[in-house]
Amino acid sequence: MSIAKLGVGVLGVGEMGRRHAENIRRLVPEARLVGVADVDATRAQRVAAELEIDHWFGSLDAMLAHNDIDCVLIATPDKFHAQAIRTAGAAGKHILCEKPLATNLADAHAALSAVDSNRVSLQIGFMRRYDPAYAAAMKRVEAGEIGEPVIFKSVGRDKDVPPLAAYQANVNGMVFYNNTIHDFDLARWLMRDEVVEVQSYTTVAIRPEVAQYGDVVASVVNLKYARGAIGNVESYVQAIYGYDVRTEIVGSKASILVGTVRQIPATFLTANGGTQVLADHFLTRFADAYLAEVRDFVQSVLHDRPPRVTGEDGLRALEIAVAAETSHLESRPCSVSHPQTVRAQV
Amino acid sequence: MSIAKLGVGVLGVGEMGRRHAENIRRLVPEARLVGVADVDATRAQRVAAELEIDHWFGSLDAMLAHNDIDCVLIATPDKFHAQAIRTAGAAGKHILCEKPLATNLADAHAALSAVDSNRVSLQIGFMRRYDPAYAAAMKRVEAGEIGEPVIFKSVGRDKDVPPLAAYQANVNGMVFYNNTIHDFDLARWLMRDEVVEVQSYTTVAIRPEVAQYGDVVASVVNLKYARGAIGNVESYVQAIYGYDVRTEIVGSKASILVGTVRQIPATFLTANGGTQVLADHFLTRFADAYLAEVRDFVQSVLHDRPPRVTGEDGLRALEIAVAAETSHLESRPCSVSHPQTVRAQV
Amino acid sequence: MSIAKLGVGVLGVGEMGRRHAENIRRLVPEARLVGVADVDATRAQRVAAELEIDHWFGSLDAMLAHNDIDCVLIATPDKFHAQAIRTAGAAGKHILCEKPLATNLADAHAALSAVDSNRVSLQIGFMRRYDPAYAAAMKRVEAGEIGEPVIFKSVGRDKDVPPLAAYQANVNGMVFYNNTIHDFDLARWLMRDEVVEVQSYTTVAIRPEVAQYGDVVASVVNLKYARGAIGNVESYVQAIYGYDVRTEIVGSKASILVGTVRQIPATFLTANGGTQVLADHFLTRFADAYLAEVRDFVQSVLHDRPPRVTGEDGLRALEIAVAAETSHLESRPCSVSHPQTVRAQV
Amino acid sequence: MSIAKLGVGVLGVGEMGRRHAENIRRLVPEARLVGVADVDATRAQRVAAELEIDHWFGSLDAMLAHNDIDCVLIATPDKFHAQAIRTAGAAGKHILCEKPLATNLADAHAALSAVDSNRVSLQIGFMRRYDPAYAAAMKRVEAGEIGEPVIFKSVGRDKDVPPLAAYQANVNGMVFYNNTIHDFDLARWLMRDEVVEVQSYTTVAIRPEVAQYGDVVASVVNLKYARGAIGNVESYVQAIYGYDVRTEIVGSKASILVGTVRQIPATFLTANGGTQVLADHFLTRFADAYLAEVRDFVQSVLHDRPPRVTGEDGLRALEIAVAAETSHLESRPCSVSHPQTVRAQV
Repeated sequence: MSIAKLGVGVLGVGEMGRRHAENIRRLVPEARLVGVADVDATRAQRVAAELEIDHWFGSLDAMLAHNDIDCVLIATPDKFHAQAIRTAGAAGKHILCEKPLATNLADAHAALSAVDSNRVSLQIGFMRRYDPAYAAAMKRVEAGEIGEPVIFKSVGRDKDVPPLAAYQANVNGMVFYNNTIHDFDLARWLMRDEVVEVQSYTTVAIRPEVAQYGDVVASVVNLKYARGAIGNVESYVQAIYGYDVRTEIVGSKASILVGTVRQIPATFLTANGGTQVLADHFLTRFADAYLAEVRDFVQSVLHDRPPRVTGEDGLRALEIAVAAETSHLESRPCSVSHPQTVRAQV
Repeated sequence: MSIAKLGVGVLGVGEMGRRHAENIRRLVPEARLVGVADVDATRAQRVAAELEIDHWFGSLDAMLAHNDIDCVLIATPDKFHAQAIRTAGAAGKHILCEKPLATNLADAHAALSAVDSNRVSLQIGFMRRYDPAYAAAMKRVEAGEIGEPVIFKSVGRDKDVPPLAAYQANVNGMVFYNNTIHDFDLARWLMRDEVVEVQSYTTVAIRPEVAQYGDVVASVVNLKYARGAIGNVESYVQAIYGYDVRTEIVGSKASILVGTVRQIPATFLTANGGTQVLADHFLTRFADAYLAEVRDFVQSVLHDRPPRVTGEDGLRALEIAVAAETSHLESRPCSVSHPQTVRAQV
Repeated sequence: MSIAKLGVGVLGVGEMGRRHAENIRRLVPEARLVGVADVDATRAQRVAAELEIDHWFGSLDAMLAHNDIDCVLIATPDKFHAQAIRTAGAAGKHILCEKPLATNLADAHAALSAVDSNRVSLQIGFMRRYDPAYAAAMKRVEAGEIGEPVIFKSVGRDKDVPPLAAYQANVNGMVFYNNTIHDFDLARWLMRDEVVEVQSYTTVAIRPEVAQYGDVVASVVNLKYARGAIGNVESYVQAIYGYDVRTEIVGSKASILVGTVRQIPATFLTANGGTQVLADHFLTRFADAYLAEVRDFVQSVLHDRPPRVTGEDGLRALEIAVAAETSHLESRPCSVSHPQTVRAQV
Repeated sequence: MSIAKLGVGVLGVGEMGRRHAENIRRLVPEARLVGVADVDATRAQRVAAELEIDHWFGSLDAMLAHNDIDCVLIATPDKFHAQAIRTAGAAGKHILCEKPLATNLADAHAALSAVDSNRVSLQIGFMRRYDPAYAAAMKRVEAGEIGEPVIFKSVGRDKDVPPLAAYQANVNGMVFYNNTIHDFDLARWLMRDEVVEVQSYTTVAIRPEVAQYGDVVASVVNLKYARGAIGNVESYVQAIYGYDVRTEIVGSKASILVGTVRQIPATFLTANGGTQVLADHFLTRFADAYLAEVRDFVQSVLHDRPPRVTGEDGLRALEIAVAAETSHLESRPCSVSHPQTVRAQV
């Protein structure tokens, strides 16, 4: 019955990878979850049992050796993304890789080269593009309803501050690479333009101990676009009140606000005021988006069409992150470099 | 691997039954979707194929004959609910039945008798109790946060007006039995009290042709509670702007508002004002609730505990609907009759 | 410079009358506040001093004796409205009277007769019609944007529960006459139709001691309209969380929601959720409406046109209140009586 | 009766000055509007007639010659503010001056010197500090409810794009001086900290013709604070959809959002979605603030206490605006210079 199904292996089954694996296992009829792999083989085994699949692996290589694997979903810590892409690419597997593409530009280019030379498909996990609200916004942008784009604004605030151990392990890069990169992607996608220069300020004020790891707790990044628009992106990893992602696209004819801080549609009215329960997790806020993302990836592979979020998109967002970090380190505006000779198509 | 799984058969795979079947097939690890049945055997076959299961049936009896069926989920048109409960009960199967329990009290009592005498479990599909917002509201009510309940208010508006053919087929009973019954259940559950009398007004004003079928397009029903509280429930089946379900519980110390008319968290600002996309379907609004409902039913059967929404709950809501219809027909307040002798436990 | 100004006297300078007097004194250039009168002459004197005007009086008769009085604004306790209208009318003065017109129908008819026979103008203080949000709603209704009106809903909740002394003094009539009458007026105005029958439930549950005064703390009143629409109005005088007035007009083509429970446009986000400051007083919520109301009254007198809210409007709303009380007392639906012979024009 | 009243003269009776004059004339019992002055004497005469006062003047000098003038409210075009302060100060009059203090630092210092040497009081018209929502926010900040301030965000969008003639006349300075300066003041006030450096991007994209006047249509300005916090302020003078002012103060323990884009509390639901009427004018949005501001100024003079918004505050906000313009012109981060030797007190 499952002859035509796309065989998928998931690499890395922490919180994020487990969700992807579960979605593929249960909610993507055109795909089959063949196996899961994790450096923590016990975790891989447990997830395989929970999802009622037969195969688990302690490494990507082991998983790639399995015959039924047509493509790989990469959900390892960020700094292993690029190498995993190269390995999977070399094995001729199509790839859906969590953001970011890589944590530095050299790794990113090496990964993209492997993808190109092996002629496999690579999609980057900017799942917000699949969120119903962001998708509806983009539809209006594409229909010309906002007129000329003038200002891009985005706020990304995480509730759960990472433990210091995560900083020590240094697996994710600083905030620009792991968090703000979502907004950098939206900044390009929704404005349908390229960011050419950035200016950033950052702060460690309420958690100075992260400075030793080169990280910050909050940032504001001004954006300058190729066609003259401007923007600003704010990130904050310690928003005690909740998970708060909001974006505005301000145009000459209309403006679009995406985002709400509310978890459930209920309000509690007391003598102390009206209270609402606030959102607290990205897997809740973007549950639909993660599912739609993986479904679309599967469709793109099955129908041999380019992925909707390309490796090029991953590279461009990374270039903005690099420029934002440079601006932060060198206290100056920083151009977003994109050597046109390296890669032709956009 | 699936030794301990609960075998479920779904009866009726229209829009609602198909969703239930899909949830069981994909998202309830402790259950197994054994088969689907429908008087339209072609539809049953198609759904079985889509959900990649082996068995489909043209009748409940045929499905009950299958060895692996432990319980039945009934999602037929309303007027067949009671008979299906009797049949499934007689076969010793546990039952999750869509609301309403029945479309008249005699059928309801017959169904409950069958459940009792066969010692099977019966849960009624008041899925709103499983919606995160309603559940959060109930949690606060139970914690005493609202103080004494004083007023219950609920609005239920459907966007898609039923075709006249649906009225002619007369499968669902009038609006009180198919729509408002949700609010009648919430009226009991959230107020933790019984409705003892109702007063209703109805109208067919903008669709007078439904009057010949004994139905209406809108209604307001005042509620009087046993402990002195009051309430009102409004229904409207032709809310052109969207699917709009909102409830308030007003207490002496606080008030709770549940509900929003917004589909996605986006606002579009133009020279004509700010616009929002409105909700349009109950399967979207209550997607989480439907899944949580069936999961909880499966747990209750596996762990041999009473269902969270009992047949008694189904009967009580039906009694309010009957009283509301009587008030509408006879232009007078109508007591909610509940012959205590018939059934002891509440 | 003030030759053409309309001379106004205000009768009753409690909280409400003082606001009217202040509006006339400061914000209605076409009018002049000649004096204020109150049975508590000391209060009248104090208000006159605060507003920097020369005249105060201990009675309506004394005020009417002053030459410059062209019209009288009545803001006494409700049960004195009708007699004050008769007295002012007999003196040939135009009248803006706070709601309700009277606290019983006999008084109401006597008051309207006096107005008719003396050919003075009478406006009733249904100030919500002047609120920008209600006015915008009505404009859309009049433009046909909602299509056929189907359902009218209104909620009126007061924060500050009246002291028992106010009940003992029995100056305002029960809740239907003093509070709900606003919604009864909106019910006619926004639906552009007449209410012909009502059904009401009431409760004293959390304050049983008001029962001895014939009053209640909460009520729900179903409405039946002449042209087939239906409605419901809820009132609650002890909404501890705030002053909450909301109205919906549901039509065949669109629906309008008026009202918000929020006092200021600010949200406070903490680990306990999002909090808003709730509205707490009608003089805050309807500040603009009260001013617009008195300005319009002054204009209507100066330009010799009928007031926008007539004595007839006051009578009709009162008739609904009487029917609602009768339904409450006699536990039955009650027709809204309107003896057409008594008064011809509508 | 008016012996103790503060005599006020208003200089400049365009839209803004006329509102101030009207507030003083009608709604500030402790003050008396003695006269109004405008270079357009006809306008001064017309406003005097409308407000029913006796005196109008064609110049500040003429108004200052009137005996009853105790203080002057300056509402001229921005570039005349500083000179008017010097003149009024030299005449020993207390001053409430619209923002900005001046359009360049030299003028600002000269104005403040005149104020100091003549020992008069000077308040700058940052009226947002008096808005109920901003005031409530500040109260929570001062109570320590947000913990440490981490991020400041503000958006200021004007609906009505200025005519080119206004740019040609060059009376207001570029957008930073006339619009964003409100946000620069809030940035200091709400964070209770000083901005030490800024980075700005600007755009003229949809109205390139303003570039010749040194102005822009939109800007984003990153802020760096003395104590380590960061921020961003966005301005846009052509927000076709409405007047939109929103501010966030993000702290370690809580966050505050101020602002709403909605004009009236009404929502219109149609098959095309839910629509709201958006705010369109600062005199509507901040009506209460303007009145509270002038009342507080009058109180401060009468009770001989320092104004709540000082000349120093005006200077500091101006310094930020100058730095923001410099960053825009020189494409680099720019320090906010504040020569401590010039002025001692803060």
